[in-house]
Amino acid sequence: MNTTSAPTRIATTPWPKGAPAAVSLTFDVDADAGDCWRRLSGRLTTLSEAQYGIGKGLERILRVLRGHEVTATFYVPGEVAHKYPQAIKALADAGHEVGHHGYHHLFTDTVRPTEERDELLRGLDALTEVLGRRPAGYRSPGWELTPLTLELLDREGFLYDSSCMGDDEPYTLRHGGHEILELPIDWSLDDWVFFRFSREAGGLMSDPEALLRTWTREMQNAIEESRHVTLTMHPEVMGRGYRCHVLSELIDWLRARNVWIVNHAELVRFLTANADPMRTRDELPVCATRPQA
Amino acid sequence: MNTTSAPTRIATTPWPKGAPAAVSLTFDVDADAGDCWRRLSGRLTTLSEAQYGIGKGLERILRVLRGHEVTATFYVPGEVAHKYPQAIKALADAGHEVGHHGYHHLFTDTVRPTEERDELLRGLDALTEVLGRRPAGYRSPGWELTPLTLELLDREGFLYDSSCMGDDEPYTLRHGGHEILELPIDWSLDDWVFFRFSREAGGLMSDPEALLRTWTREMQNAIEESRHVTLTMHPEVMGRGYRCHVLSELIDWLRARNVWIVNHAELVRFLTANADPMRTRDELPVCATRPQA
Amino acid sequence: MNTTSAPTRIATTPWPKGAPAAVSLTFDVDADAGDCWRRLSGRLTTLSEAQYGIGKGLERILRVLRGHEVTATFYVPGEVAHKYPQAIKALADAGHEVGHHGYHHLFTDTVRPTEERDELLRGLDALTEVLGRRPAGYRSPGWELTPLTLELLDREGFLYDSSCMGDDEPYTLRHGGHEILELPIDWSLDDWVFFRFSREAGGLMSDPEALLRTWTREMQNAIEESRHVTLTMHPEVMGRGYRCHVLSELIDWLRARNVWIVNHAELVRFLTANADPMRTRDELPVCATRPQA
Amino acid sequence: MNTTSAPTRIATTPWPKGAPAAVSLTFDVDADAGDCWRRLSGRLTTLSEAQYGIGKGLERILRVLRGHEVTATFYVPGEVAHKYPQAIKALADAGHEVGHHGYHHLFTDTVRPTEERDELLRGLDALTEVLGRRPAGYRSPGWELTPLTLELLDREGFLYDSSCMGDDEPYTLRHGGHEILELPIDWSLDDWVFFRFSREAGGLMSDPEALLRTWTREMQNAIEESRHVTLTMHPEVMGRGYRCHVLSELIDWLRARNVWIVNHAELVRFLTANADPMRTRDELPVCATRPQA
Repeated sequence: MNTTSAPTRIATTPWPKGAPAAVSLTFDVDADAGDCWRRLSGRLTTLSEAQYGIGKGLERILRVLRGHEVTATFYVPGEVAHKYPQAIKALADAGHEVGHHGYHHLFTDTVRPTEERDELLRGLDALTEVLGRRPAGYRSPGWELTPLTLELLDREGFLYDSSCMGDDEPYTLRHGGHEILELPIDWSLDDWVFFRFSREAGGLMSDPEALLRTWTREMQNAIEESRHVTLTMHPEVMGRGYRCHVLSELIDWLRARNVWIVNHAELVRFLTANADPMRTRDELPVCATRPQA
Repeated sequence: MNTTSAPTRIATTPWPKGAPAAVSLTFDVDADAGDCWRRLSGRLTTLSEAQYGIGKGLERILRVLRGHEVTATFYVPGEVAHKYPQAIKALADAGHEVGHHGYHHLFTDTVRPTEERDELLRGLDALTEVLGRRPAGYRSPGWELTPLTLELLDREGFLYDSSCMGDDEPYTLRHGGHEILELPIDWSLDDWVFFRFSREAGGLMSDPEALLRTWTREMQNAIEESRHVTLTMHPEVMGRGYRCHVLSELIDWLRARNVWIVNHAELVRFLTANADPMRTRDELPVCATRPQA
Repeated sequence: MNTTSAPTRIATTPWPKGAPAAVSLTFDVDADAGDCWRRLSGRLTTLSEAQYGIGKGLERILRVLRGHEVTATFYVPGEVAHKYPQAIKALADAGHEVGHHGYHHLFTDTVRPTEERDELLRGLDALTEVLGRRPAGYRSPGWELTPLTLELLDREGFLYDSSCMGDDEPYTLRHGGHEILELPIDWSLDDWVFFRFSREAGGLMSDPEALLRTWTREMQNAIEESRHVTLTMHPEVMGRGYRCHVLSELIDWLRARNVWIVNHAELVRFLTANADPMRTRDELPVCATRPQA
Repeated sequence: MNTTSAPTRIATTPWPKGAPAAVSLTFDVDADAGDCWRRLSGRLTTLSEAQYGIGKGLERILRVLRGHEVTATFYVPGEVAHKYPQAIKALADAGHEVGHHGYHHLFTDTVRPTEERDELLRGLDALTEVLGRRPAGYRSPGWELTPLTLELLDREGFLYDSSCMGDDEPYTLRHGGHEILELPIDWSLDDWVFFRFSREAGGLMSDPEALLRTWTREMQNAIEESRHVTLTMHPEVMGRGYRCHVLSELIDWLRARNVWIVNHAELVRFLTANADPMRTRDELPVCATRPQA
């Protein structure tokens, strides 16, 4: 069949160490992937903006994460792993997870099926070659999962995907006879939406407080609902100096509330080990700010 | 004749229980209507974003409304009622109003007259079939009422429309020999304008405080003018965790000021029963913040 | 010759009654001008949004102005004067100035010279006919003055134009052998830039505090520099309830600082009567916030 | 070879006089350069907006800089130097640096190689002619450096470029066998991104607090990392009254923290004289807001 079923949420035992909620910090390390079709070699400024991500941006983010002793998930296109193997290996060596993010960072919904298949299989080979192990999870470049990629993920034994928006806590995605554990994303939980800009397309340059207020409000709600949240960032976006301050403040905020900061692979291990089929996640607590009776 | 007359406002006796103003919370439940022409079946992320609305988004909003003991109006395309009959019936069972919102959510101003007619009549059949009763009101998908749809609304005996912007309190809309009670909307009173985003079209991701300040300031003005306001939201937009907090804060704010929270059908009953043709609404009170003499 | 000379600022004696600065509140009453080429008769929502301006929006703004006892300048397309003669006459009767704003609100830089000439001459006839007197000033629809329109303004004896951005206080605009007194505008001093939105073009929906902070900061600077500022609003934009609150707060702020609120015609009379050719406006005071020595 | 090497940061002895960080205020004086291809002579409003920059905008900015006794770098297209030689000479006479910014302000990545070469060589001639000395540095109009322009900069002996984003402190840019000292820029450190608007392209009109918060947060981070930051402004953008207030507040903020405000030429002299090849800048300090152990 070719339809999407309603998401089934994953119910588990309570979060470890009494944490009221959980969060994953994830980073899409796009760097200068796909420079052939983006003609970056003739545009040194745009090229340098992309390379800022794999250089200074990544370096500063790693420092923030190390300073707070947390690990994150980095989604890396195969081409980036091939170009910057040292940097990508260093991510794994520092205890972070590296996930699959296509090969050339081509948008799955705009290429032909053979290219789409290539993106997935070449990306898988590249990360396996550079890291010496297969990635456990996948995130679609440009955030558009397709039925073909879902089928390939299922066949290749990926443990999870993080490209869809069908819920705001982990769920099982089923479509066309294939299924996968989905760790959902959202545009409002993506740094790029707040700070994107290009000469051609324009964009938005938000007050950094807007992102901080949005994300802490979302985590406040997650605490009330005891749920997990995935935040998405990009080294070339969140790695800028003033934004790393915001990231650091956010982590302080999470620590002060004992939120479990966990990368995607660890989360999946926890969900698998502690899934509680007897319990459902169908009942949300009533929103905390309602008037008292 | 084919012209639009000036809006005639509806004057009534004072609001019930001494309320200083009235407000309707309305939700456009677009979900994955029109997936055929949006080619959603090949775009699982965009499809999941739409389905988030009919699933988690709607669930959380219903919980907020139940927690505050208020009812709302949900505008539903016929296709959504056909796909998710349980969810739509549950809305009516919980005491909410369900209104007409086209069939495939096609934009009335961009389709041919036969399609436009189909949208209205099929949508009417679908809601009547699923709910066992005809909807009382209509809101145009994409917010563009046309003369043909107005004519059909008049002929089919709809009690009101909520698609125009000719005033900011209920009025009688007359055009081309047809008329209807209009419960007006506005872009600044629509959550989608503050939080819309797509990869292709970009968009705005506002600080949630901007929406809260805009809407409470609007209600403050409505209190000074003793008028009714229609707020429009979408389950896939306002149903996100942090935004439901904002919705909940807004309802608290309204409750603290004794504003009458009323759905569209109830409002229309009140307006009809209490219309006071002797009183005019032509005189607005002078704005409260002017300097004292 | 066909070049633009540098602006010559107008130096005068001090502002009346010891006012530290002056400001003009101006409103572009576009309403549903040009509905033929905008095909508004088939788009009742867009039509109603435009008509909100000439109806409720204008009514509320006039109430705010009356409550504060200030007069403003309203720029009106000839077509709007022809359609709504009562509303436009009422503006003049209430002591406000009515200025020229084209006929169909066609963009002068996108039409042929014959149409551009028609826009100016028909608009002039329409306003003269409805008001019984010629308008003293002109503002270009869409804010793009052209050499041809400037030539026509000069020939027709207009006293001033308010469509350019060559300075931020009154100056003499000279181009191609023609000259006129210019009362300059700016995008950041236009409400439409903060609150515009359409389904097709998207837009920005700002926190109302952003406009208030921008405009009061601009007036603070004007006070330090003893200069005049022109603010531009639209009845369909600023006439909404919560925005009239902002307008009212702004006027309170201006009153508390004894700023002279003056319409364009009055300002021009004052500038003409008090021009002081011996004094130059070349020296700005040093910005007040510099560190003390 | 035709690839870009990783940026090499410039390590030096500590900043002069114990300054904890350094900043350059830079201004792109685009004015009405390229009016031939922008058809500005028929669009007097757009022309006047551009000329505001070279007139009132520049005048007010110079006053702020003089009031604070700081010098800045002004990047000037050759055509602007030819049209406004007095204004450009006055910049140099006041102790500011004047840098190269193309001739007609054509985008290097959109013109043919012969035009691109012309832009660089004619711009160089124009500035040398007007100022009596060659400019030391270059910034690409529209912010897109190309390999050809880099090659020309290298051949013509430019001391530095300020058009790329490969790091956020000075570094050596190497590409295709050519190299130059790069003083990097970023979209979030450009006033135009916050306040741009045009009738055709729309844009963003930020709360001025958003820019101030962004830039002071960035400088706070620069202080923690002892690094240099380049801020970019435009006279027609930052020269408006209320924005000059923001600029003045920013300089006060920098002064209160003893940040070294230095133009690009002076910075390059300092970097060259104090480069410390024994020291590396590879280690960033850990972010200050991490939780204490």
